[in-house]
Amino acid sequence: MATATSSTALNYARDNQKRFLEELKDLLRIPSISTLEEHNKDTEKAAQVCADELKRIGFEHVEIIPTANKERPNAHPLVYADWLHAAGKPTVLCYAHYDVQPAEPLDEWKSPPFEPTERNHNIYARGAVDDKGQLWMQLKAFESLMKSEGKLPINVRVILEGEEEVGGESISDYVKIRKDKLKADFALVTDTELFAPDLPTLCVGLRGLVYTEIEAQGAATDLHSGIYGGAAPNPLFALIEIVGKLKDANGKILIPGFYDQVKEPTKAELDAWKRLPFDEEEYRKKEVGSNVLTGEPGYSVLYRTWARPTLEVHGMPGGFTALGAKTVIPARASAKVSMRLVPDQDPDDILKKYTDYVTKLTPKGIKINIKVHSKGPACVVSTDNKYVKAATEAMHEIFAKDTVYIRSGGSIPIVSDFENELKIPSVMMGMGLPDDNLHAPNEKFHIPNFYRGIDSIIRFFQILG
Amino acid sequence: MATATSSTALNYARDNQKRFLEELKDLLRIPSISTLEEHNKDTEKAAQVCADELKRIGFEHVEIIPTANKERPNAHPLVYADWLHAAGKPTVLCYAHYDVQPAEPLDEWKSPPFEPTERNHNIYARGAVDDKGQLWMQLKAFESLMKSEGKLPINVRVILEGEEEVGGESISDYVKIRKDKLKADFALVTDTELFAPDLPTLCVGLRGLVYTEIEAQGAATDLHSGIYGGAAPNPLFALIEIVGKLKDANGKILIPGFYDQVKEPTKAELDAWKRLPFDEEEYRKKEVGSNVLTGEPGYSVLYRTWARPTLEVHGMPGGFTALGAKTVIPARASAKVSMRLVPDQDPDDILKKYTDYVTKLTPKGIKINIKVHSKGPACVVSTDNKYVKAATEAMHEIFAKDTVYIRSGGSIPIVSDFENELKIPSVMMGMGLPDDNLHAPNEKFHIPNFYRGIDSIIRFFQILG
Repeated sequence: MATATSSTALNYARDNQKRFLEELKDLLRIPSISTLEEHNKDTEKAAQVCADELKRIGFEHVEIIPTANKERPNAHPLVYADWLHAAGKPTVLCYAHYDVQPAEPLDEWKSPPFEPTERNHNIYARGAVDDKGQLWMQLKAFESLMKSEGKLPINVRVILEGEEEVGGESISDYVKIRKDKLKADFALVTDTELFAPDLPTLCVGLRGLVYTEIEAQGAATDLHSGIYGGAAPNPLFALIEIVGKLKDANGKILIPGFYDQVKEPTKAELDAWKRLPFDEEEYRKKEVGSNVLTGEPGYSVLYRTWARPTLEVHGMPGGFTALGAKTVIPARASAKVSMRLVPDQDPDDILKKYTDYVTKLTPKGIKINIKVHSKGPACVVSTDNKYVKAATEAMHEIFAKDTVYIRSGGSIPIVSDFENELKIPSVMMGMGLPDDNLHAPNEKFHIPNFYRGIDSIIRFFQILG
Repeated sequence: MATATSSTALNYARDNQKRFLEELKDLLRIPSISTLEEHNKDTEKAAQVCADELKRIGFEHVEIIPTANKERPNAHPLVYADWLHAAGKPTVLCYAHYDVQPAEPLDEWKSPPFEPTERNHNIYARGAVDDKGQLWMQLKAFESLMKSEGKLPINVRVILEGEEEVGGESISDYVKIRKDKLKADFALVTDTELFAPDLPTLCVGLRGLVYTEIEAQGAATDLHSGIYGGAAPNPLFALIEIVGKLKDANGKILIPGFYDQVKEPTKAELDAWKRLPFDEEEYRKKEVGSNVLTGEPGYSVLYRTWARPTLEVHGMPGGFTALGAKTVIPARASAKVSMRLVPDQDPDDILKKYTDYVTKLTPKGIKINIKVHSKGPACVVSTDNKYVKAATEAMHEIFAKDTVYIRSGGSIPIVSDFENELKIPSVMMGMGLPDDNLHAPNEKFHIPNFYRGIDSIIRFFQILG
């Protein structure tokens, strides 16, 4: 087996770093925003770029799988490919997503979100770290192995999606009906982050998500607040009354029964978290940039963000939101409210409790409708299998440091689907950094981490082969 | 004195109705939205159209008065004109505004807001009734008198503004510094409505307004709600906590001391309101279109909307408000909150109490700033003067019914300025209808009321002359 320093594939990867980065920039220039229908041509284009590249590298059965139908006109295609000629070796199912979040608020970007720009060894663009940069790490590891050694050390299936940022319904359906096609021993998911800049990290737990929109209607039409103020119901104020009662000032969620199924982390896990290099004051200042941190008293920051359920409001469309003043009582308004779930909360159970409570809180004169944007459970992966162990070793080699295990407060519903439907564990090997501004203005990817990601995947596969 | 039926001016007005309406349509085609800077050219154009028309009619000293300066780049010009050759007769100061509200939500308009369209004897357009149609009534009354009789029966000064929908700061300043130029015995304000379709109505009371925007900041940048949910402050949720505590479910405002200065209407006024043709159930169904009416128990609808202070939230910019889902904890958000005031509440006193209370309610981790969009007191005009009496008689003649006195829940701050600065009462002779959708989609003006408005002003001036 080649060692880290003498591997032909690693040499190939290192010789081609500049080109790999330029290729990534091309992918980042495509505004493949999955939530906005006007960008459907862009999501298609991003899928096509990935498929073409897999073909070029030497993958077989490369396929763009359409998923849109009458009921879901805004669905985005999957990209599938495989190379299955490593007889007797394990099979990996490699997952990443080519869609990105919207870029708003645009005026806070220092360089335009879809014009990738290098500053301070970072590449700035929407999707740089989430997830195009990490998707491209995989493809470039495959290329390095294939072009330098003529083959891959293990069997590889690739499945890429374009709906991760909008709930991932299509891939979730596909995993359920095409278990045969996606058959593998484990999955590799590159959509997480390092705990600290040079600390090799594997993510072994994710929170689940229920993302809803409460739509409220009062009067039949928008009304003048002078003429009708004092008689007409205001759906925006009604939403304020409702959402304000969903959690208390300490972040405790007030939905009856909400915490019933919450499973606490093990003592060993909590102890390991305490040993991680984490400075709460630095996190507050550098990452969050607020004058205090909030959340439930009695839990550490890592506990609160990794293993406690939370509830947030993301936006309240309706009424007059432009600059200036308009004296309107809106006829309609809505509140985008999401909940992060932890093991063993069941998303359907939580959604029912939430719906019942919101309905109970709705004031007279207001009709509500709860729309569900996405829904998936939390997931914890065991560290006690050979794939996680090989990944641990690969990262240790490339970073020359001991690999740590963390959880993430975010949600990758596909990891649950891989576990529940395909019965395979996921190795979450992510190269993001805590200050990469994912989902925010000035999203970036640290360029050395892009290269270390490629190297780590090469070594990971070589160790398993 | 000419009688209603034999007046040459009335005949002139009636012969030219179709042309008057076509001219009004031209004015309505100009999107003079005062709150949106991108429409500044349109507000200027609307001012110019009014000035040109006053000149054509025979007014003197016609002047477009610029008001924009470094501190208020979005100020809009005033239009002044006079005709002062009725020696020994009273002088009226005629007021109307040429600016309009934004037209959003655009998709609810049956015909485009700036393409005036006739349907069912109504003219549909943004600004049709508020206030371009009522502005044009004045000009066409002046024209009818001047062109048919060669002169006006009383002295007339005209002052038109383009900032009524954004607080009217420029005219308010101008009234204070140019009292000499605006010297008059009373004002005529055409910006209110009839109580019922054929019921001659004079408005003798208006609510005041304090319109604020609470700007809130949490983290330094937008954050991912998965990664940071449980630790980062959410300014949108903070605003929900604050605004939710400003009034209770019955509409009672909870700001300490808010009701201290509230002056109740007289028993005579309350009794007169009870005699007005008002069907609460019809109002709920036809005007508001909600399944219940809201507001303080123990007060009638007219009392609640005319003589009780109220608080509304109009919009909450910030976070993700487009279609779909984005898992963001916004760094910044704001809430547009206004209060309608009644006699004798002082806007500065109310603003102070509001600011103190909002500050007190602000949760930890959130910085707030309260921006004031506009501010003006309530105003009640005495019915016991010869101008109101002449207006009462003029409308009685034209409508052939007894004129009633009402209040309006809306705010026309300039009426307070006329009272406090110029020491003159205002005659609020408005021809709108309760279902004219002002500030809302499908704003309209009932065309027969446009014509009756012209006739009523002609007779009003003739009676005083």
